[in-house]
Amino acid sequence: MREFELLKHVYAANPALPARVTIPPGDDMGALRLETPEVLVTVDQLVDGLHFDLATTPLEKIARKAITRNLSDVAAMAAVPAGAVAAACLPRDFGDARARRLFDLMRLVAQSYDCPLIGGDISMWDHPLVLTLTVLAESRGVVPVLRKGAREGDVVCVTGELGGSLLDDNGRVHHLDFEPRLKVARALASNPATRPHCMLDLSDGLARDLGHLCDAAEVGEGERLGAELFADRLPIRPIVHNVCDGRAPWVHALADGEDYELCFTIDAARAAKLPRAVAGCPITQIGRIILRAPGSPAPGNPASGNKPAAKISLILSDGSTRSVDDLGWEHHGP
Amino acid sequence: MREFELLKHVYAANPALPARVTIPPGDDMGALRLETPEVLVTVDQLVDGLHFDLATTPLEKIARKAITRNLSDVAAMAAVPAGAVAAACLPRDFGDARARRLFDLMRLVAQSYDCPLIGGDISMWDHPLVLTLTVLAESRGVVPVLRKGAREGDVVCVTGELGGSLLDDNGRVHHLDFEPRLKVARALASNPATRPHCMLDLSDGLARDLGHLCDAAEVGEGERLGAELFADRLPIRPIVHNVCDGRAPWVHALADGEDYELCFTIDAARAAKLPRAVAGCPITQIGRIILRAPGSPAPGNPASGNKPAAKISLILSDGSTRSVDDLGWEHHGP
Repeated sequence: MREFELLKHVYAANPALPARVTIPPGDDMGALRLETPEVLVTVDQLVDGLHFDLATTPLEKIARKAITRNLSDVAAMAAVPAGAVAAACLPRDFGDARARRLFDLMRLVAQSYDCPLIGGDISMWDHPLVLTLTVLAESRGVVPVLRKGAREGDVVCVTGELGGSLLDDNGRVHHLDFEPRLKVARALASNPATRPHCMLDLSDGLARDLGHLCDAAEVGEGERLGAELFADRLPIRPIVHNVCDGRAPWVHALADGEDYELCFTIDAARAAKLPRAVAGCPITQIGRIILRAPGSPAPGNPASGNKPAAKISLILSDGSTRSVDDLGWEHHGP
Repeated sequence: MREFELLKHVYAANPALPARVTIPPGDDMGALRLETPEVLVTVDQLVDGLHFDLATTPLEKIARKAITRNLSDVAAMAAVPAGAVAAACLPRDFGDARARRLFDLMRLVAQSYDCPLIGGDISMWDHPLVLTLTVLAESRGVVPVLRKGAREGDVVCVTGELGGSLLDDNGRVHHLDFEPRLKVARALASNPATRPHCMLDLSDGLARDLGHLCDAAEVGEGERLGAELFADRLPIRPIVHNVCDGRAPWVHALADGEDYELCFTIDAARAAKLPRAVAGCPITQIGRIILRAPGSPAPGNPASGNKPAAKISLILSDGSTRSVDDLGWEHHGP
């Protein structure tokens, strides 16, 4: 099948596009009419061998993850998906029927999140499958929650459970089957009593991603934020306890990655009144934001006193503290 | 270099973002404030081995084409670029310095078109380089020109020259060095005297792409549009005449692809007054839109009389006519 024919099939099968699609797929560009002139955008690639294994993963799961991985970014801003475009490099031996099915499935998943596919690009080649999804979103009355905004003393919270995202849990594999946290993000951010100071979604593991929230914070000259987490408060996914790889369960929770949960901070007074679940999603308070000691004394920086130099510290159940800055995961492997 | 570090470098180097960037790169999503709530979007992949050859193409040209290929779609709508996101699969041996340079170059090219990069995604892998650019655009007071809208009797026009896009013309190779036709598109579409009925950019060759304009037209029940082109009116790129491959120059003009010129139709009365150049860009009237004969007589369809069944016909200088529906090109090769 030629590229154009495949795209034509995809778009011909696109029924019931929402009214905000002002230029439907099939033109040089698609177009959406948003509620306000501000548009949010994110792009993510899903690559055979890195983010899934084509040989063992059903097309349904690949299509699903291609969409939900981006929607997790939309959730992290407390935004609402508006539309998407999909690009694919398809292996030449992929086959027309499978190609059509993959795009049909992506279209259906996107549609189920009211995020219509309004454009695409397809290349055929002799290498592994690459899917690149770009999702547009809008704020619809809720100011987006940024990564910056953490303050000393904030309580660190996460949604859902952490760790073991690659493990098969009775047929459910979290990194393929997760539900992007769109609803809880909207509920939290739209309520002044629960609106996070900052938020992101956890893709590279809590230890690394929480570090991004600390780094993004706007602090005083020479100041840096860090976080102290309590190991026994981490909402560790139960299946992690079945793993016998010599690593403590908290290592999995901090480092496995692909949790696609939200991590946010909120001031202590509001945290005290935060429910244990919002919009049906569990919320766990796992630690707090602290002022970090400088890594080494520098001109103008007084000695650090008792402040820890680590960015993210973990307080274990025996009361001991260790840095977890060495933990974390990148999709391209060790 | 880890993915996050590379993206951080890219974004740290992003100076002087236009005021419409309301959430700069580095967050879970970037954001733009447009003039109106309508956003246009297009995605295109640039793949080593299909759209360029990494071994022989300078990074500057690859970065340029990654941006301009998308901007050609923006031109085809007579829209104005607003911002972009870039995703890359980088070969693991690509090297940190080259990766930084490639992204810096893409950022600079995008910036030169007032189309800031506001987000991205990077994966490292053991296969060829893939760049996926998504460009957002806005109409800024000019209603987008769609593919649909051609009418019987319209004159078919193209900008610039056609054919030979892969040939080295004293160091200039059109498919890498072309200028997206943003200005001429705006000038044409914003003036009622010159506003096209329909328009697209030529990437797969005039024969195929003009066919898309014919297919997209909204015509009466049982009617189909086609086009008749005059071989001696085609603005053939001069270097094509140096090629000795046994194919007539007009074949190159119709089939080589990657022209990234605009093709549009306009009614005959307006065409008669159309200048030979608009916004410094040559415009050539190459033929007209006709009512096609049905491929075969069907119930309710009278016999075709003298109407040609071909979608796109070429009238050669000897007065003979032939179908060119068999010409055209797909990026994934023969």
